[in-house]
Amino acid sequence: MTALVSLDARTGQPCGEPLPTATLVDIDAAVQAAQAAAADWGASDGATRARLLRELAQALEADREALVACADRETALGEVRLQGELDRTAFQLRRFASLAEQGTPFVRVDDPAVAGAPPVGHPAMWRQRVPLGPVAMFAASNFPFAFSVLGGDTASALAAGCPVVVKAHPGHPALSQQVMALVRPVLARLGLPAGLVGMVQGAAVEVGVALIRHPLIAAGAFTGSTRGGIALLAEANARPRPIPFYGELGAINPVVALPAALAARGAELATLLAGSITLGCGQFCTNPGLIVVIDGAATDAFVAGLAEAIAPLQPHAMLTPGMRRAFDAGVQHLLQAGAQPLVQGAGQASAPGPHLLQVPATRFIDTPALREEVFGPSSLIVRCADEAEVLRVLDAVGGSLTVTLWGVDDDTPVNRALVRGATAVAGRVLFSGVPTGVAVTAAQQHGGPWPASTAPMTTSVGDAALDRFLRPVCLQDAPAWLVQRQGVPF
Amino acid sequence: MTALVSLDARTGQPCGEPLPTATLVDIDAAVQAAQAAAADWGASDGATRARLLRELAQALEADREALVACADRETALGEVRLQGELDRTAFQLRRFASLAEQGTPFVRVDDPAVAGAPPVGHPAMWRQRVPLGPVAMFAASNFPFAFSVLGGDTASALAAGCPVVVKAHPGHPALSQQVMALVRPVLARLGLPAGLVGMVQGAAVEVGVALIRHPLIAAGAFTGSTRGGIALLAEANARPRPIPFYGELGAINPVVALPAALAARGAELATLLAGSITLGCGQFCTNPGLIVVIDGAATDAFVAGLAEAIAPLQPHAMLTPGMRRAFDAGVQHLLQAGAQPLVQGAGQASAPGPHLLQVPATRFIDTPALREEVFGPSSLIVRCADEAEVLRVLDAVGGSLTVTLWGVDDDTPVNRALVRGATAVAGRVLFSGVPTGVAVTAAQQHGGPWPASTAPMTTSVGDAALDRFLRPVCLQDAPAWLVQRQGVPF
Repeated sequence: MTALVSLDARTGQPCGEPLPTATLVDIDAAVQAAQAAAADWGASDGATRARLLRELAQALEADREALVACADRETALGEVRLQGELDRTAFQLRRFASLAEQGTPFVRVDDPAVAGAPPVGHPAMWRQRVPLGPVAMFAASNFPFAFSVLGGDTASALAAGCPVVVKAHPGHPALSQQVMALVRPVLARLGLPAGLVGMVQGAAVEVGVALIRHPLIAAGAFTGSTRGGIALLAEANARPRPIPFYGELGAINPVVALPAALAARGAELATLLAGSITLGCGQFCTNPGLIVVIDGAATDAFVAGLAEAIAPLQPHAMLTPGMRRAFDAGVQHLLQAGAQPLVQGAGQASAPGPHLLQVPATRFIDTPALREEVFGPSSLIVRCADEAEVLRVLDAVGGSLTVTLWGVDDDTPVNRALVRGATAVAGRVLFSGVPTGVAVTAAQQHGGPWPASTAPMTTSVGDAALDRFLRPVCLQDAPAWLVQRQGVPF
Repeated sequence: MTALVSLDARTGQPCGEPLPTATLVDIDAAVQAAQAAAADWGASDGATRARLLRELAQALEADREALVACADRETALGEVRLQGELDRTAFQLRRFASLAEQGTPFVRVDDPAVAGAPPVGHPAMWRQRVPLGPVAMFAASNFPFAFSVLGGDTASALAAGCPVVVKAHPGHPALSQQVMALVRPVLARLGLPAGLVGMVQGAAVEVGVALIRHPLIAAGAFTGSTRGGIALLAEANARPRPIPFYGELGAINPVVALPAALAARGAELATLLAGSITLGCGQFCTNPGLIVVIDGAATDAFVAGLAEAIAPLQPHAMLTPGMRRAFDAGVQHLLQAGAQPLVQGAGQASAPGPHLLQVPATRFIDTPALREEVFGPSSLIVRCADEAEVLRVLDAVGGSLTVTLWGVDDDTPVNRALVRGATAVAGRVLFSGVPTGVAVTAAQQHGGPWPASTAPMTTSVGDAALDRFLRPVCLQDAPAWLVQRQGVPF
């Protein structure tokens, strides 16, 4: 069994003794406790759910200094970023509180009876959503607050009326425990069962597998690697009763930089992009791993400028030694698949240097290995002959969280085709700026066709994240007492 | 290769020569043609989509007599039922026409920019849905119009902006050809590509498998057996790029008949239920295959009345000889698993007699074999000691298209628990009447937890069926020309 140890991300040194790993008995107890809480929580009203979510936000903020210090030690993400991430996490909790309070989970579609024979006539019906039940939430390595114990998945599941069992990420085990230690007194103070938010920990894959296999788990939510997500999806599908599995997996996030944009503001865009590639040591699911360009003078200047801008940047340490090794291997993989190196930063023990590579479009299209995500500060330039080849490159990518289109400012047939090509493969299409930075809003869509997501119709960020945990049910000819519970769960 | 032959369902005799089976080349050609039509159709406006759907409805109605005669020969479902089903199919086409015209597929969630730093500040965004692309539609045996070539899946996919390749059901191959022969001139008259609605035929499973494996197919929609649906779902998941697969599989549709209802109107309910079990020879996905009762005098009288009412009913012939054999085997299976026979109708060569069986709740809960759907005029009575045992029976069922609750007219804790228990396992909960008969409305939910559906958050009947073929995309900082295309696809 792999030991669970809290490591200092900058030094790789352990802090304290190994932590206990959840046994099958622990996992069963956590899920049973969640199931025991499910009926009452599913029948709770919006005000009750909002109160819990707001108190959790407040608890995070009240313990901000200690939490950020612990997170920084375990992740090396830096205090500024972690303060911002904690703010975002509290914001998310309060946003879902508001949605619960406004009645979003309880919205009904009313269909009064229509007299007469079918197909026109029909009985009185309404459509309402019911919570799925206990959700297994798999925390991410790269967002120790926002996609972790009290992150967006937990917030949206609780708002939807579902208990949560968190599988903590082994990259920040001490922080996960510290956050859970805040949750318990909040639940107790509000008179809510401790099982409503449970947690299991472990460095071995068996812990997550046992959790998703548990018969009482009703859905899985995951943010992480493609390999890990595929393994858990297979487990969810192989259950005697398969369950929804919402996996937000890897993405290479193409940035299409058209000559028009590069001629107008190539130097500025090169600086912007160099910053986005190296931000947070490139450890974002929206990191721009692919830059798609059309050959020409403006493009040559942009590529030279990008190389010049990125070469001197030294990203901070990676989240774990394992991720550092995986990054080096990923870059080697691209080189072996035929990518030419433009910038090969030397880096340091725990912190890699930036990497910029280049490949012709034809080779990119023919070589699946060039489309694998390299998690870290690296990006691959794909050189196309024209817009038609850009479209073939996007089609080869197949699925991504984002596609960025720079330079489609005019309504032309070519630009429309590019917009269609981008929307066909992405969950979010940007027309300016860089894909890193994912706003928590009503319109957000953080997902996309495979391999970006195992459930591309859903989002793991933004208001619609709630929809993942509510299943529609039609109630036909309901008795008066049930009809009257308008907006109140039963 | 299994031969494709149009059979007279009443005599089992072939009508005409064997029909050609689609080859891999045929399947590829149909999908390529659908893909070639995808961009323009995806960019079409609501009026264009509505025009096609309405003309298809009209074409069905114009050829009504010949279509119903052919359908009746191939399915033995009878003229009255088939006339009604054709009406329903035309109604569905027109309903999705109206939704397209009203702009349902084009609805946008607008999120204007908010100034300031994140998490509060964010760029201008909107959320819009885009069509998935070519849909593989697997027609059902038991609805030769409404879940077939121009059925609800085709209507909703076209309204969503997706081309369709139909895998016709081998149980009614001549009818499928006859309907397709109506589609082609409509497409031609409207200047639409023939590939927008394609069809492949074949009795061998390889045809469907090749279709769902095709790299250009973007989603699958299926109504049929649990076994067939599981096999196609596995294919959809095993693709290099998995795709959504909307399978509406089997269900046993528990009817919970509580003593209060049986004491008040047991005789009337027995007659109603006997009719529902044998309607259409029990060949409905909403056929009530399970009757859950609580021991007592009113229940004993109801069971006796039900046995008396159902025994003399002689259902019509089944859809195919294979389904006739599967029904007999299914009943034997229940008997071997410990069910006691109450009514064992002798039946005829092609038409089985009605069957009514009985089992104690404890045995039902412990015996998975008793929960398998028997497609045909059969139902299993499960006798419970009390409401708590009823809840355990529903939990053992796990997932069903419908649950019917007779006798929860008062607002009591027990009745609330029963409503919660029913909604936890069903897509639709009825409080009066019988589950057969599925209205096409805004509130309909035809789906449910596994094994009722492979995608329990979706419905294959009603307005929300459209949602299955549209994927949300967020557009961020879009240029003016794109913003102005409000309600118009790009």
